[in-house]
Amino acid sequence: METKSYVVKMNGNEVLIGVHHVHVNGTLYPAKTKSRKQCWEVKPSHMAQNTLNPIRAIVDGMKLTPNPDKPMIALSIGDPTVFGNLPTDEAVLQAMKDAIDSHKFNGYAPSVGYLQSRQAVANFYSCPEAPLGPEDVILTSGCSQAIDLAISVLCNPGDNILVPCPGFSLYKTLAVSMGIQVKLYNLLPEKSWDVDLQHLESLIDEKTSCIIVTNPSNPCGSVFTKEHIQKILKVASRHCVPILADEIYSDMVFPGCSSPSVASLSSDVPILACGGLAKRWLVPGWRLGWIMIHDRNDIFGSEIRQGLVKLSQRILGACTIVQGALESILNNTPQSFYSRTISFLKSNSEICFNKLSTVPGLNPVMPSGAMYLMVGIGMEHFPDFKNDVDFTERLVTEQSVFAFEYPNYFRIVVTVPEEQMVEACGRIREFCLTHYRPRSRDSNDLDQ
Amino acid sequence: METKSYVVKMNGNEVLIGVHHVHVNGTLYPAKTKSRKQCWEVKPSHMAQNTLNPIRAIVDGMKLTPNPDKPMIALSIGDPTVFGNLPTDEAVLQAMKDAIDSHKFNGYAPSVGYLQSRQAVANFYSCPEAPLGPEDVILTSGCSQAIDLAISVLCNPGDNILVPCPGFSLYKTLAVSMGIQVKLYNLLPEKSWDVDLQHLESLIDEKTSCIIVTNPSNPCGSVFTKEHIQKILKVASRHCVPILADEIYSDMVFPGCSSPSVASLSSDVPILACGGLAKRWLVPGWRLGWIMIHDRNDIFGSEIRQGLVKLSQRILGACTIVQGALESILNNTPQSFYSRTISFLKSNSEICFNKLSTVPGLNPVMPSGAMYLMVGIGMEHFPDFKNDVDFTERLVTEQSVFAFEYPNYFRIVVTVPEEQMVEACGRIREFCLTHYRPRSRDSNDLDQ
Ligand SMILES: Cc1ncc(COP(=O)(O)O)c(C=O)c1O
Ligand SMILES: Cc1ncc(COP(=O)(O)O)c(C=O)c1O
Repeated sequence: METKSYVVKMNGNEVLIGVHHVHVNGTLYPAKTKSRKQCWEVKPSHMAQNTLNPIRAIVDGMKLTPNPDKPMIALSIGDPTVFGNLPTDEAVLQAMKDAIDSHKFNGYAPSVGYLQSRQAVANFYSCPEAPLGPEDVILTSGCSQAIDLAISVLCNPGDNILVPCPGFSLYKTLAVSMGIQVKLYNLLPEKSWDVDLQHLESLIDEKTSCIIVTNPSNPCGSVFTKEHIQKILKVASRHCVPILADEIYSDMVFPGCSSPSVASLSSDVPILACGGLAKRWLVPGWRLGWIMIHDRNDIFGSEIRQGLVKLSQRILGACTIVQGALESILNNTPQSFYSRTISFLKSNSEICFNKLSTVPGLNPVMPSGAMYLMVGIGMEHFPDFKNDVDFTERLVTEQSVFAFEYPNYFRIVVTVPEEQMVEACGRIREFCLTHYRPRSRDSNDLDQ
Repeated sequence: METKSYVVKMNGNEVLIGVHHVHVNGTLYPAKTKSRKQCWEVKPSHMAQNTLNPIRAIVDGMKLTPNPDKPMIALSIGDPTVFGNLPTDEAVLQAMKDAIDSHKFNGYAPSVGYLQSRQAVANFYSCPEAPLGPEDVILTSGCSQAIDLAISVLCNPGDNILVPCPGFSLYKTLAVSMGIQVKLYNLLPEKSWDVDLQHLESLIDEKTSCIIVTNPSNPCGSVFTKEHIQKILKVASRHCVPILADEIYSDMVFPGCSSPSVASLSSDVPILACGGLAKRWLVPGWRLGWIMIHDRNDIFGSEIRQGLVKLSQRILGACTIVQGALESILNNTPQSFYSRTISFLKSNSEICFNKLSTVPGLNPVMPSGAMYLMVGIGMEHFPDFKNDVDFTERLVTEQSVFAFEYPNYFRIVVTVPEEQMVEACGRIREFCLTHYRPRSRDSNDLDQ
């Protein structure tokens, strides 16, 4: 490439190209030889190309054609509002209208959220074993942004994070787009979807910057016992890896079951607990989430806290009206609202579980919380289908029932109205009966 | 480092370390020799460390102590709501309450926003020279996220972007955190803050992935003429660089002035135009922004569009209540609301300009739009101060007047109530009179 200097006419001015500085209009500018673009070529960044959110891709652009003779029943999307049968509480809506009428919540909030709203979250979730103050809370645009900030502050490109399998797909979406490797640790369906602790431990290396624990679980609907959470914490503690606890479904557990937070059981492991209004308050569109920083041994220290604050300043967080309503939402939503939701989810889960338990080739797993039920597919009994993806796609095209696919399982969202749940289970039965081929050798172990 | 294999007790199980796979409980797991962390050491990521938002840092954590005898007047923050004198319109609030009462906007919206809301933005901003459909609009969590997505889709780490100087600090905050280099191109105060086109052009190289144009300008309050925008477009066109047009202050121009959008003047240059409700509708806390994709020559093509869609799926965007209210906000806000805001901004700017024009050592520049007024500081007349930062800090500690500092300038937000503006200008006068030292040689050119 030539580097000697020469004068060219550019933009009506004589410009000297090829030396370090030129005078233009009396001002000194750098003017090194530079190859500039000669034609238009605008390509999306690697990050954009590497961002893939399978759930949103399906929600935003479903490509399959359902059976025209049967109205579609979508058991696929973790949005409890789509059927209209699970409205949020009037107190929640009133809190929003009060926030609007107050005229106090239209300006910019601090990037971490209003003090009073953070205080409200701290009060709501504080417990003696895991006390919280407002300085431990950061409000975000949904739990998704909470997860984004938590991963962003803990991980560098080249690091890896441990993610449950089956699990919520966003972890991978975010991590991969940031050049962070995802290692999947197994959940064990035969052990109520507990973590395969040895597998988890075997995946940890010096590049592991966090373990994500989802409890209660999407997609499994499982709820870890206190003892199991303690074992997970032991693994994290032994290898000095912090935990990102995705507890968006916290307290959404069926009666008789309890779900302590990971932080309440941790003595040393520092924890970023992520939550939000989306599920328990049935308003996922409002985009209000939070990170709660639990760091009793000062391992995160001020650096991680400052890092989170800085990251929150990139785009600011949650809508101020929802922030303004938050204190009242947390304090004034009647207990009966929460228990009504849970009873409904439990009863719908039981209906679904009981109906699908008798369907040949399927193995539903009864959930203990959240709003999902996983159904194992005995693929060897369905030779008509290439694989589990094919199975769920044909369920759409033949029966207009849409359920989200996981390896050897499909997930049913149990928020649909009861009649639709019954109807959907009937169609699933019909579908399976049509395609089921008993395989004498091993059908016994699988349909147990 | 040793690599031979040996058996260790781990977690109660015998595990073989140093070979490729080990059996644990009958399952085959990888178990290479791995150095695992022996002690806690959790550091924030490089990205978190490299994220610095100077404005938010000041807003969120102001360190200076104002003069206790004078109540603070903050002329610093681009939040028109803080003084209560510029409420949003009742129609805007009613639209929100209607959206809440409709019960229709509580669930997840598509990640790019509701079709109807995107259609409303498209209709509002469409013009014959730059037609828009809903597929050209993406709703975001504030204009900040719009800028974030636009930079994210256009730029890779190692690229550079051209950013106005003086300019809005978020561009640099975002770019630097993503490993993108920022090159500042000068705006010329003596030419109504027009772009120094030769400087702009001299900065372009093969790694330049976009030019950011802010019009009307924060911090300058300037509004480019049609002819000037055409010249900027020529530079972009010559070097095949797309434009990110930050038009959050679009239509906030004083009577007699017009502000065509960059897109309406572009025949070939593809443009991502960013905007939002924050400023014109006086609700910055609500976090509703948008990207409008202008690509008449199909240079972005489907790839950049798809890239933006994918990026929008990372955390989803704007609160659905605000999205649900958007159509009504855009269509039902009375014209009188907009003109009242503009008249106020103009009259306050004139008061401020007239008062500060007669203050020795200061050179205010009369704005034509947005909500800012820049005041040049003849630093050579203020030997008491080390630099312009020192000047603005002492203005806080002595006069309790807080204005945001730019090199040789400070920026005044003209949204404060008139009495406070008058009071602030009086204090600034007192401050300058106290510290002004005439310098006979060149005082004439500077105080012209
Ligand atoms: C486990 C889990 N975490 C996080 C989220 C995201 O929550 P939000 O809508 O508040 O971003 C979901 C949503 O389905 C989820 O299932
Ligand atoms: C030029 C400019 N662009 C973008 C923004 C951010 O707007 P939003 O609050 O909608 O994120 C601002 C806010 O001050 C601004 O001045």
